[in-house]
Amino acid sequence: MEEKFTLLREWMLKNGYFALLIPRTDEFQNEYISPASERIKWLTGFSGSAGEVLIMIDRAFLFVDGRYTLQAEKETNPKLITVIQSQGAQIEDFFYSALPQGSVIGYNPWLYTQAHIERIKKISKKNNVIFKPTPYDPIDYLWTDKPRNETTWAVPFPDKYSGLSSSNKIVDIASSLGVDNDDLIFISDLESIAWLLNIRGNDTQYIPIIQSFVLLYKSGSLQWFVDENKITDNLRQKISSLVEIISIKTFPNFLEVIGHQNLKVQLDKKQCSSWIYEKLQSTGAIIHDKENPCIIKKACKNQVERNGAVNAHIKDGIAVCRFLAWFDKTIKENELCELDVAKKIYEFRSENPLFRGESFSCIAASAENAAIVHYHTDEQNNSKIKNNSLFLIDSGAQYLDGTTDITRTIAVGEVGGLEKKRFTQVLKGHIAIATIAFPEGTSGSQLDALARQYLWRDGVDYSHGTGHGIGSYLSVHEGPQRISSKGSNLALAPGMLISNEPGYYLAHSFGIRLENVVMVEPMQPVMGSELRMLKLSTLTLAPFDRRLIDKSLLTLRERSWIDGYHSRIRKMITPFVDTETALWLEWACAPL
Amino acid sequence: MEEKFTLLREWMLKNGYFALLIPRTDEFQNEYISPASERIKWLTGFSGSAGEVLIMIDRAFLFVDGRYTLQAEKETNPKLITVIQSQGAQIEDFFYSALPQGSVIGYNPWLYTQAHIERIKKISKKNNVIFKPTPYDPIDYLWTDKPRNETTWAVPFPDKYSGLSSSNKIVDIASSLGVDNDDLIFISDLESIAWLLNIRGNDTQYIPIIQSFVLLYKSGSLQWFVDENKITDNLRQKISSLVEIISIKTFPNFLEVIGHQNLKVQLDKKQCSSWIYEKLQSTGAIIHDKENPCIIKKACKNQVERNGAVNAHIKDGIAVCRFLAWFDKTIKENELCELDVAKKIYEFRSENPLFRGESFSCIAASAENAAIVHYHTDEQNNSKIKNNSLFLIDSGAQYLDGTTDITRTIAVGEVGGLEKKRFTQVLKGHIAIATIAFPEGTSGSQLDALARQYLWRDGVDYSHGTGHGIGSYLSVHEGPQRISSKGSNLALAPGMLISNEPGYYLAHSFGIRLENVVMVEPMQPVMGSELRMLKLSTLTLAPFDRRLIDKSLLTLRERSWIDGYHSRIRKMITPFVDTETALWLEWACAPL
Repeated sequence: MEEKFTLLREWMLKNGYFALLIPRTDEFQNEYISPASERIKWLTGFSGSAGEVLIMIDRAFLFVDGRYTLQAEKETNPKLITVIQSQGAQIEDFFYSALPQGSVIGYNPWLYTQAHIERIKKISKKNNVIFKPTPYDPIDYLWTDKPRNETTWAVPFPDKYSGLSSSNKIVDIASSLGVDNDDLIFISDLESIAWLLNIRGNDTQYIPIIQSFVLLYKSGSLQWFVDENKITDNLRQKISSLVEIISIKTFPNFLEVIGHQNLKVQLDKKQCSSWIYEKLQSTGAIIHDKENPCIIKKACKNQVERNGAVNAHIKDGIAVCRFLAWFDKTIKENELCELDVAKKIYEFRSENPLFRGESFSCIAASAENAAIVHYHTDEQNNSKIKNNSLFLIDSGAQYLDGTTDITRTIAVGEVGGLEKKRFTQVLKGHIAIATIAFPEGTSGSQLDALARQYLWRDGVDYSHGTGHGIGSYLSVHEGPQRISSKGSNLALAPGMLISNEPGYYLAHSFGIRLENVVMVEPMQPVMGSELRMLKLSTLTLAPFDRRLIDKSLLTLRERSWIDGYHSRIRKMITPFVDTETALWLEWACAPL
Repeated sequence: MEEKFTLLREWMLKNGYFALLIPRTDEFQNEYISPASERIKWLTGFSGSAGEVLIMIDRAFLFVDGRYTLQAEKETNPKLITVIQSQGAQIEDFFYSALPQGSVIGYNPWLYTQAHIERIKKISKKNNVIFKPTPYDPIDYLWTDKPRNETTWAVPFPDKYSGLSSSNKIVDIASSLGVDNDDLIFISDLESIAWLLNIRGNDTQYIPIIQSFVLLYKSGSLQWFVDENKITDNLRQKISSLVEIISIKTFPNFLEVIGHQNLKVQLDKKQCSSWIYEKLQSTGAIIHDKENPCIIKKACKNQVERNGAVNAHIKDGIAVCRFLAWFDKTIKENELCELDVAKKIYEFRSENPLFRGESFSCIAASAENAAIVHYHTDEQNNSKIKNNSLFLIDSGAQYLDGTTDITRTIAVGEVGGLEKKRFTQVLKGHIAIATIAFPEGTSGSQLDALARQYLWRDGVDYSHGTGHGIGSYLSVHEGPQRISSKGSNLALAPGMLISNEPGYYLAHSFGIRLENVVMVEPMQPVMGSELRMLKLSTLTLAPFDRRLIDKSLLTLRERSWIDGYHSRIRKMITPFVDTETALWLEWACAPL
């Protein structure tokens, strides 16, 4: 490690940088990155999924959020780098206390969005430090034994799952350019590209996207910049009449051509890398910053996608119910570790032919491990599942027809009264969201407190949002829809998929989270109804652990929701499972 | 009217304006204005409390919000002016469809805040129209028989009610100027001035403020610009050691002095008139736009003000309970009109020596009148109170120790099932707010949906916020605290007073609103509590009409809240009322 720091500092001195800023992302601003993009890990040893490094000539800092503080301290050498728990704007505040006036800080402009760079440059002006892009990535220059990315494949995503042909989507987006007289739109968001072109790839774990860029002209002609080796014949045949497939290596030349013609380019600064933005602007393009129009269209699922989501959750329900029955039986007789359980739920899911992998890394957490909200179950974190405690499992799957995400909290042996009380309070909050009716125009932020009110009565809360958006065989974390206190005013709209996942975490003791996926749907008007109302239909099909419900804390309405939900699960899942699971379902779904 | 339009257009032509914009406010941006500031009424005849006029050479428009459309159409001549239902940004959109490119629109810069002018100028640039201040107000120039404002008096507001001396407040604000190296602060918000100087006046109806401006320097020296005739000897004696009293006529000269010294002036663009802003800027002052620091300090009542609020609500409860008892008895035997009732509640309140007037114009509305949310009871709107219907009364008082605001909805004769159902749903929402516990940092916008959820189940809602802030013997509408769906993220904090007023309105049929004042207070921790929690303590003391409650729709918890609230009212109010009212209280506060 020490040598890497020395080499990097030599490079900095030679090239006139007092400091370098290194983010943990790739050229496409991905959440999950390939080993070849793990620059922070290469330099410092830190392997967490979020962080930023500021290396100066004399000191170095690693900024991580609360969930990674301990891990970062364990994995890094304190003589070389200081770990700071800090996020977002706090990091920038830190710069100005640490950096001498007039110092030059380098960054790789491919790894930061233009919006991010504008924000830090604004502050830097006030504080008299200079942010300057490096001409190439200094880590890549020094990292001589970089692993090569494996070639992955891109395949067509059939209309029978997407519900809308790519040509329709392309015409729709292209015609929207007329409104502001834009000549073309640049799209770098990989989920948007997968949605727009009806393709799925395998370039990152968990999200079936393919690394590429899109230029879509108002005429409807579309240039897709991609590693051509990744295109299967099947895909080429399918879309070559629709899009021009161009090697991603030549992409910069095309930006120059656009610039030299002074074309007006629509792009989203929050997604476009600073390098691309600067290239366009410096060569003469007129830039129109606008919210990526694919985002909201992708969020409001069409009827085929909605049906797909329903079906995916039936498949997932079968796997999860089989898993839960297996778990209840096995844990009584055998010792199990967290990783065993994570593997087992994978196994049940993988039996379905439409299964395409997990939608995120399964969190299987026993007792106090579940109090760590982002606990990562792996070889290093693989506790024995404790008796007389709660076990939490948060997992999800990618099926061709939909993405799932479910958390259940299960009693292992005898569980204390506080656990049951908190479980029931979390459940009451979950039911408040599951049963809410609300007028069109209502935002998720208006609903968030409904899920917390019962915990609040006891002076406790959970420190995450109540729900995040979910894609259609795409990312399990999708915007812009969400249920969160500090949310936008974006209205929830029919076809949006959102998680409903209140929780409670008592540090060093236990963790509870009850998560279903819900779909925003129009509500049938009742007598006297005056407004167009929406509701949240629960798609997930797996029972909540009745052993953990304190019935005396439920209202009649809540009790009847639980009983109705469980009866629906039993009816829908029983025909598809073995006798043992069917018997378990009979027990697990019995009325309270 | 026609002549006024002609004269104004002659002035416009002569002075090079294609259009004029006329707001309904005064030089202090007041909500309630004096007759001499009723420029829209003078020109058009429209007497509503909100609106804006755009008069062009060939056409004229009056913009009003939904509650005033009918009234505006009735009061104005359609040949002269067109009424448009429109608010805020919509008005500005309208400009650009109506105004020819390059046209010049005049406005009186004393009547618009700088923030407003900047907003419309920004849009005007894009649309190629020119907003230009007029050198004087053209209406004032033509309005030769303008009524003269009566001289009113300003009096000291004793520390025993304010809880904090003016010198303390002045030192506090002055010392805050150091943070941003400001030389002085300019304050034009009249409620802030009343709060800062511990004075109360009588310059507008309902709000005890005095028209004036403040310049407070970092040294702590304060210049108060006011009509000196208004200062009572008592007040002069009290504050002359603390502030320099200067004639408001000389105020512009002082702005120039500040400008010529290039002083750095803190001001709030959302409150400062464009005239004053421009004067400062053009003469060389350095302007620092910042939220008026008095606002949040004024909103978080100190202990003396909190006690005052509690006491004011006991006094108000006595008057309101006497009124309710009188109403129940009288309406059975006599015919009553809305105005009779409004007068009667005034009468009961005025018996208290600390009473200083109504805090707003009482809304007394029978049957379908109550469906008009901002119904204005007066000589023209004075219906007979109908039998077998709901009667709504929304009223409030100014007491030396606090401001009140209460709405009750009362059964007159036999009332239908829908009315009772809706009343109970509104009541359930009211109770949800009255009983909520929430962690520090929670905003009012997070709580708003709690009050609506029961109405939403039936596909109905109310189209106003759930609660507004309330002053301490100041405005009954005070910011920044509120409970509203489209709210800011401002956290509710101890000592804030807010109304809790869900409602339901069925056009042409009936209206329901149940309004109490609540105070934000720390909550005593319960067992296992982990967070610092707040609650909303109900201050208002008057029973809800038990005849309108459908018990079968209440949970046990809601029922016990009502019974507990009613029992508290009975205990606290009975000792202070006549036998007849005491007997009525016994009946009205009996358990459900």
